[in-house]
Parts: sequence; C-alpha cells; structure tokens
Amino acid sequence: MSTLTEKRHTLAHLLAAAVVQQYPHAKLTIGPAIDTGFYYDIDFSGGPVLGDDGLKDIQKVMKKLLNGWTEFTHKEVSKEEALAHFEGNEFKTELINEIATQGETITLYTCGGFTDLCRGGHCEHPNKEIDTDGFKLDKVAGAYWRGDEKNMMLTRVYGLAFDTKAELDTYLYQLDEAKKRDHRKLGKELDLFTFSDLVGSGLPLWTPKGTVIRHELDRFIWELRSKHDYQRVTIPHITKKDLYQTSGHWDKFADELFRITTREGKEYALKPMNCPHHTQIFDRTPHSYKAMPQRYAETTMVYRDEQSGELGGLTRVLSITQDDSHVFCRHNQIKEEFFRVWDIIDTFYGSFGFKLRVRLSFHEPTKMEKYLGTKEIWENAESALRDIAKERNADYFEAQGEAAMYGPKLDFMAKDSIGREHQVATIQLDMNLPERFDLTCINEKGEKERIVMMHCAIMGSIERFSAVLIEHTAGNFPLWLAPVQVRILTVNDSLAPYAESVLSALKALEIRAGVDASSESLGKKIRAAKVEKLPYFIVIGDKEKEAGTVTLESRDGTSTSLSVNELTARLAEEIATKKI
Amino acid sequence: MSTLTEKRHTLAHLLAAAVVQQYPHAKLTIGPAIDTGFYYDIDFSGGPVLGDDGLKDIQKVMKKLLNGWTEFTHKEVSKEEALAHFEGNEFKTELINEIATQGETITLYTCGGFTDLCRGGHCEHPNKEIDTDGFKLDKVAGAYWRGDEKNMMLTRVYGLAFDTKAELDTYLYQLDEAKKRDHRKLGKELDLFTFSDLVGSGLPLWTPKGTVIRHELDRFIWELRSKHDYQRVTIPHITKKDLYQTSGHWDKFADELFRITTREGKEYALKPMNCPHHTQIFDRTPHSYKAMPQRYAETTMVYRDEQSGELGGLTRVLSITQDDSHVFCRHNQIKEEFFRVWDIIDTFYGSFGFKLRVRLSFHEPTKMEKYLGTKEIWENAESALRDIAKERNADYFEAQGEAAMYGPKLDFMAKDSIGREHQVATIQLDMNLPERFDLTCINEKGEKERIVMMHCAIMGSIERFSAVLIEHTAGNFPLWLAPVQVRILTVNDSLAPYAESVLSALKALEIRAGVDASSESLGKKIRAAKVEKLPYFIVIGDKEKEAGTVTLESRDGTSTSLSVNELTARLAEEIATKKI
Repeated sequence: MSTLTEKRHTLAHLLAAAVVQQYPHAKLTIGPAIDTGFYYDIDFSGGPVLGDDGLKDIQKVMKKLLNGWTEFTHKEVSKEEALAHFEGNEFKTELINEIATQGETITLYTCGGFTDLCRGGHCEHPNKEIDTDGFKLDKVAGAYWRGDEKNMMLTRVYGLAFDTKAELDTYLYQLDEAKKRDHRKLGKELDLFTFSDLVGSGLPLWTPKGTVIRHELDRFIWELRSKHDYQRVTIPHITKKDLYQTSGHWDKFADELFRITTREGKEYALKPMNCPHHTQIFDRTPHSYKAMPQRYAETTMVYRDEQSGELGGLTRVLSITQDDSHVFCRHNQIKEEFFRVWDIIDTFYGSFGFKLRVRLSFHEPTKMEKYLGTKEIWENAESALRDIAKERNADYFEAQGEAAMYGPKLDFMAKDSIGREHQVATIQLDMNLPERFDLTCINEKGEKERIVMMHCAIMGSIERFSAVLIEHTAGNFPLWLAPVQVRILTVNDSLAPYAESVLSALKALEIRAGVDASSESLGKKIRAAKVEKLPYFIVIGDKEKEAGTVTLESRDGTSTSLSVNELTARLAEEIATKKI
Repeated sequence: MSTLTEKRHTLAHLLAAAVVQQYPHAKLTIGPAIDTGFYYDIDFSGGPVLGDDGLKDIQKVMKKLLNGWTEFTHKEVSKEEALAHFEGNEFKTELINEIATQGETITLYTCGGFTDLCRGGHCEHPNKEIDTDGFKLDKVAGAYWRGDEKNMMLTRVYGLAFDTKAELDTYLYQLDEAKKRDHRKLGKELDLFTFSDLVGSGLPLWTPKGTVIRHELDRFIWELRSKHDYQRVTIPHITKKDLYQTSGHWDKFADELFRITTREGKEYALKPMNCPHHTQIFDRTPHSYKAMPQRYAETTMVYRDEQSGELGGLTRVLSITQDDSHVFCRHNQIKEEFFRVWDIIDTFYGSFGFKLRVRLSFHEPTKMEKYLGTKEIWENAESALRDIAKERNADYFEAQGEAAMYGPKLDFMAKDSIGREHQVATIQLDMNLPERFDLTCINEKGEKERIVMMHCAIMGSIERFSAVLIEHTAGNFPLWLAPVQVRILTVNDSLAPYAESVLSALKALEIRAGVDASSESLGKKIRAAKVEKLPYFIVIGDKEKEAGTVTLESRDGTSTSLSVNELTARLAEEIATKKI
C-alpha cells in the first residue's frame, strides 16, 4: 500500500493531467506533495487563467481520469529526449538542463497517458489506492517561479488529500472550527489581550481579564508544584555577557539575543532563558547531598529577537512568559524527579481534557560525537526514562536523534477538542550546564559530586498555552478560570439591594462576580452575558427576591433555582474541583 | 540662636584651631559643615600625622578652647594682606588668588585668637551656644585636595555634631544599630538574596527564602488593592522607541535607559517605568464615564542604567521591582482615589509599626512656566490634596516647588524602629501623560473628556522596601512574613513520627514549617533556629508525645505548652492578623 505522501504526489500529477486537458495552453512547472495535500504551479499566461470558480470542473475531470490511471510506468531518457518532450515549456527546460548539469538521471513518469518530468514516488495503481472522495481542490494563489520575486508569477492550485473521506472531513471541520476559534479573534472579542503600534508587534499587553487567566493558570501550576516541594526564586531579566559566555548561550543564541550596551560601554543581554541565572542561585553556597534535590520554580518573561515577519498573535512573540523550573539533583534522583514532573503535567493537562502522547527523545547511537557525556551516562539516563514511561503505562514512542545535545528529553503532545495535536510541555535532562558552571553537591564521602539539571516548563509559555486553551475551549473557559465567573442581572431597578446582597455573598468567597446595573432590557443583558461567554449568569426578579432565591443560568442553557447558600456552595465546589 | 549648620561650621574652625595648636606644622585647607557634623582637610606632610588615635586629645583641646571662644569677629582684607597672613600655605594661597580673580571680597574670621579665611556663617557666641557634649570627633580619612586624584592626598578629620548630647547619642545608637542591621549583612546571613559576578552587581538574585518574603509582601499589597477594585494587568519589559518618544521618556531618561537594537536594526528600550505601557491598555477601547475610574496594578521589574560605582545592596540596583499602579480617572474623582490609596498606604505601613509623615509637594506659584496645565487646574488639584490631608488628620506639611512637572504629589516618610526616616510611597497626580497619549473618557454629554492619571507604588520598590524592612526588624520578621515560620525539633529519633504528624497539621494550614531531622544535639538545633531568627520553634520530647502536646518556643524567649489544635489555631490567628 502507498503512503499518504505518495498518494498526494500522484494527485499532483492527476491535477496536472486534468488542467492540460481543459487548458491546453497551460504550461506545467512543478507540483509536490505537502502537509495537507498537494499543489501544482502552472503558467496560464497563454490563455484563460484557472480561478477558484474553475476548481470544481477540474476536480470532476480528475475523478473521471482517475479510473484510467491503473498503473505508473517510467523510463530514463537522455537530455535531448526530455527537452524534445517539453519543447516550448521554458520551465521544464530549465529543470531538465539543471538535472543534466548535475549529472543526474532524467526520468519521465507516465500514467493514464499523461507524462511528466519526475523523480518518482507515486502510487503504483492510483485507481485502486486513491479514494476519490478523500481529496478536494482547495484554492488558487499566486506563486513566483522558484519562489523568487524577480521571476514570473504563476498560478498555484492547492488540493487537500487524505486517505479517506472521513479524514478529509475531519480536516475540513478542524479548519472551519479553527477559524471560528482563532485565539487572535477571540482574544479581542473577549478582551483578553491587545497590541499597540507604539509598543510593537510580538509584545502583547494583557488586559485585566487576560491577566486573571494568566494568574489563575500560574496559581494552579504553583499549587501542583508546591505539593512536590518546589521553591520559588526570583531573578532579573538582564545579565552581564559573562554569564552567557560561560553557559555557551552567547554564541548559541547569537541572532536571537537582545543585546544591551550600558552607558559605561559594558555588554549585557536580555535573558532568552532562565537556567544560567538559576545556576547562580544554586551555586551561592555548597549543598550537602542531604539537601538535594533543590527544586526552583519561577514564572518570568524571557525575550527572543524574532524576525518581525514571523510574529503573530500569541504563538510567536518577543516576550515569552515561561512557567519555568529547574531541578538540581543527583544521578540517582533523576527517575523520581521525572516522575514528579510527569505527575504535574498529567494533572494539569488532564484537568482541561487534553489527551497526551509522549515522545522519548533519545540520542543517535551512531553519532556520539554530537553529544555531551559518555555512552554509559546516556544509556543509564534513557533507560531510566523508558522505565518511567513503562511504569506509567503512558502512550509513548521513542525517537532516536531527537535528544538535545546535553541530554535526552520527554516531549508531550496534547490533542485538543477539535483533534489537533500541539507540542506542549518538555522535560529536559541537562548534563551540560552543570559541567560548564561546575555544579556539585557534597556526597556521603565528603567529596564533590557532579550533579544534573532538569528543565521543565509545564505550560511551555503562558502565551502559547493561552492560545491553545482559547482555541481548545473556544473561549468557554471553565468556571475556575473565567475572568468574570458570574453576573447578576436584575429584572428591575428595585431589586438592586437584593442583587447587592447576593453579590456580597459571592465576593466573600472570592468569586469574580458583578451586577449588570445598566438600564438595558433583561434580554439585552442576557445577550451580553452570552457574547462574553460567561459560565453563569443569575437572573433576579421579584419572585426570587421574595423567596430569597436566585435563578442560575449556565452558558450551556440549563437553568436552576437555588437558595443563596446553595448557589455559593455549588459555585465554590465547581471552582475548587476545577470542573470542566 | 544659631542654626545647627552654623554650629557645625563653627566647630570646623574650632577643630582647625586645636590642630594647629598641637601640630604647628599642619597646613589648613578647607573645612565645611556636613549632614551629620563637619570636617577639615589638613596637610600634615611637614611632620607627624594625626591619626584616629590622636582624636581624643584634639577633642579635649577643642573643649578647652571653646571656653575662650566668646565672640566671632571678621574683617575684609586685601589680597595682599590675606596672602601675607597665610604665607607658606599653598592651599590657602590658591583659594585667595581664586577669590581675588573672581572679584569677590576676601574676609578673615577670628574667634578665640584663631583666624581663618572664610565666607562666614558661624555662631556669634560659640561658648554660649555650643553644647560641649553635643559633638565628637569621629575618624580620619584620606581626601585629595579639591577632590582631584591628581592632587596631593590630605587628611580629612571628621566630627559629628548635634544640638544636644541626647541627639548625638541617638545618632551614635542609630549608627551602631544600623551597622548590626545592615541589610546586606543580614541578607546574606538569613540567605535572602545573593549576587553573582557573572550576572553583575546591582542585579540581585533572590533565593527561595527571599522570594517567600517578596511574594508575601506583594500578596498583602494585592489584598489591600483588590478591596478597592484594582485590576491586575501584564506588560512586556520592552517596547519600541515610539512609545517613549510619545511619552517624552526617550529624551528625559536619556542616560538611564537601557537601549536595544534588534537584528533588523529597530530601536527598542527596556522599560524604566510602566506608565506608558499601561496607557496603551487603557487606550485599547473607548471608556464611558460609567466605567471610570480604571485602576490597573502590576508588580513588575523596571530597569535603569545606573553608574556601577553607585550600586550597593538592595538600595541602588539596576533591576527594580515596582508594585506599581495607575488610576485613570476624571478630575472630580481625584479626591476619592487619593483617599483609597492613602488607606492602603496607612494600613500597609501601620502593619509594620512604621510612623508616617506626609509632604504635600506643591508647585512654585511664581514659576508657572515650569509646569504643565493651568494655574486653576493646579490650585484645584492641590486644594483637593490639602483637604484630604486635613480630613485624615495626617501629620503633614506643605512644600512649594517640590511638585513634579506634571502634577502635585504626596510623599510619605516612614520612621523606622531606630528612628531613621525613609522616603517611601509617593502618590503622583499626572496631567501630562493623558495629554501626550490623548487619553479620554466619554462624558455624560457624549463628548470626549480629558482624564488624569495617578501613579502609586505602595512599597516604592520591593528591593528598597525589603532593605528598609530588614533593617527595621533586624531580620526578626513577623510570623506572616517569615520564610520559615516554625521548625520542629525532636529530642530523639524515636519522636520522628509524632513530629511528622505535627508537621502535617501545620502544612494543612499552609504554614511554612519543617522538621530538623539532623543528628545534632537539641542545644545545637535550638541555636540554629535562633541564628536563623525563626519566629517560633517547637520542641518535642517523650513527655509531649505522650500528652499529645508541643512546647512552643518564641524568638523572644517565651515558652508555652499547647495541644496540636491550640498550636495551629494560635499560629493561624497570628498569621491572619499580621501581628508584629
């Protein structure tokens, strides 16, 4: 059976065949498989140009042609034969001359009577392997020949392609949902963050509502960490160059480092990560083995000088808030410490309904020269990670060659509510910084013993996690996280004192509540609460006032009559259990 | 009666008279009054040099001579007369020539037969006005002639001088106590913060214990602010140049701004304050007058490029954590908003036993050109501040000419436990940034109305306040703030399970407690707890285990036997009430 990539590549040929049948003047250029399907860049300058409105017809032709695409054949040809075949097509001519100059073999692939210049990689029997309902022409766009803006502008025809119709439908649904849930759109609508032209792109400013979410998320992480005896530390955002020369980041982060020259001409940098600073806190004093491990946590911003064209929403920013932690431990404590962090990750992501998959990112055994430390240290460390993954019955897979230079890592992938997978937390084992900063503890024999470090940010960054969470929940945050948890709506002004007494009861429990005291109609107040996606709103009329009750309306449409005590108890319980 | 400065200046003459009597080869140079007394710079190179061990004798001579210092006289002299009087003294010669060149009058002042070149400003009758027990020679130090290291090194003799012996004693006590309480010394001993040569001076790294204090202080501030409906916001630490060009800080903070040039050659800066960023959050959307005021709070670091010679401990740092807030309000809301902030300041400083005095820093009426805004706006604003100060029965005084360019302010001075006064919180009214950023609300008539801003950091900065607090408490933090609140000490190892059960009870209430499980003797464990200045430690012996009690020992030496329930209730109460 063919791979999906081979099917997509085959479909690029099929697209080309359909196009030249309908648009005989079209000149083909190149057409590869891509992540979600395929495309073909075509020069229509000799006649009518294919637009979005012509895609349906082409798709029909493709489906019809597919029946006759029973088998791919290919032959090696000489440069002259190839040039003759594509006479009049200056694009293919350029490609053929290049292949010949590089001394490579020129091959032509044919199927269903259609022949194209190609290196291969197709379905052998397209008509049997490709599901005619598993692909769909998507859109046309402009593209310069060979991506160079000095060249001619061609028409790029995009197609989506999956193994089955169900998978295509899932992808289309995700695409559609993702558009509706786009965190940039919802972030503005729900007033969570903003950008200012004066401050610059990639530098989000968090509004009061957005900041509530940041604080609640960070508080949750700290709650989980403090159960595992983490301690918070605090560092400044800058440092002398010396720190990063010792750590190696001055060279490694060359381009991404925001550099500062002081009034006295000294070189400083804005931190792109926290580990080097944290080593200096660890190293302020000698540590007995009895005081190991030391677990430091700090939620703080780091800064990376990204190219402005790459910035967008919360996913690519210049100021990144990491919920960072560093564990300084002995080799024989690695397993337990990974276990602790994994517990935190499981609880945190589980509480939002994310399903996790884990990649054990190991070293490439044949390329030991790429890594720091002996083969034995690596094998011990990786075997410890594998044991942990087994012990936890985790959904994991191993990937050789994916380790960092300084140690193996666990990479966590979270599947969101519309089926997309996001790489989230990473636990990294680091045998490098302890060497560079000469970090030790005093062991049972009274000798200095080299320690190891573990890096782990549970959310990765608050910005990126917020983006994922906004899209995962479509802005319908669980009660504990909602910036406004409840709003009280009154049917008429005479109910204001009763509304205030209910509000006080809620505020006494630190529930984020308010009263809509505007002169709008109840209907309008309800609509406003729904637009803001509040988890709950409370309606108070004369009947409720007399009975000393409230009507609690949830975001999903259920309505319940409760006494004020029942109300506070129910909300407090839902908040405490972080119900989703 | 003479001023203290005049007395101090007189004492500088008296010192000089005593020195030349005992050291006839000594050449006098200059001798002014200073903040705590006076000094005289003297050239002893022609013979024996006065050292610290000679000060007592000189002081005796001064006291003896003082009896004969009944009256100062002075006369104007020609350059030639003056030069003749100081023949052989190249320092006075240089001064005389300078005065003559500038065309100024040369005067000689004489008392008790001792004559010096001087501009005047003494006691008229030193023997009647100066308390012989109110001054004391302090120390000698080296000082270059005219402060220029290319010149000769002279001997500077320092004296302390106050109106009365009691005031001198108070100052000596403060000096001695301040040395013992020095926050740099205690910060290290109590393991609160550290510095790293690789990170650089002026950049404190906060240890786990120091970070507990930071978090607790900040949590207290937030508790007080949230009662007044403040909302937290979050901003990045950098910005494009554009923001500070609009605010005016790009020029105003010229030297102190850490500038950054990005890889794309754009100019950015590290923020030296938060207000310009906060205006951009306010300005993200129009605000109805009904939504005013908006109160934003954020605890975040700002950065100032200080000269490295000026850095020291926590009082002068490059990274400053401000517990900042900005209130955006209408003119008619100024009074209430000042009132709210003042409430917070009173509660906060009162809870540590600081006594506050307030300076109303007003504009200079004759120099309106120095200020932004009309005379009427200023007078209204200042009259509002005066009313508030009166209403609160505050210990206040007015100071014309102390206002900021953009508005009047309230400056708070806190007196610490050894009697020193520190300038702490400031509430500033700002009529400038709202102009520059065109900040408005929509008023009752549907028109745009210019608003005002208030700036207030309650602690000023966490670094500076921590330094003040460490010295105020001598490291004996109140229970709610202590990094380790209680430690459990066992008499023998068999008591470990009971100790753990007590620990669990404490931890359930989030009390920061631990067990000293080391194999040291009880005496050593107690000494360690005292050196760390723990508010409490608990001793557990067999007797306590059997009775289900603990012995609670406080830092100040009281000892109480309590059941575990009584223990947790008592500590929880003391924490909740922030008892000092």
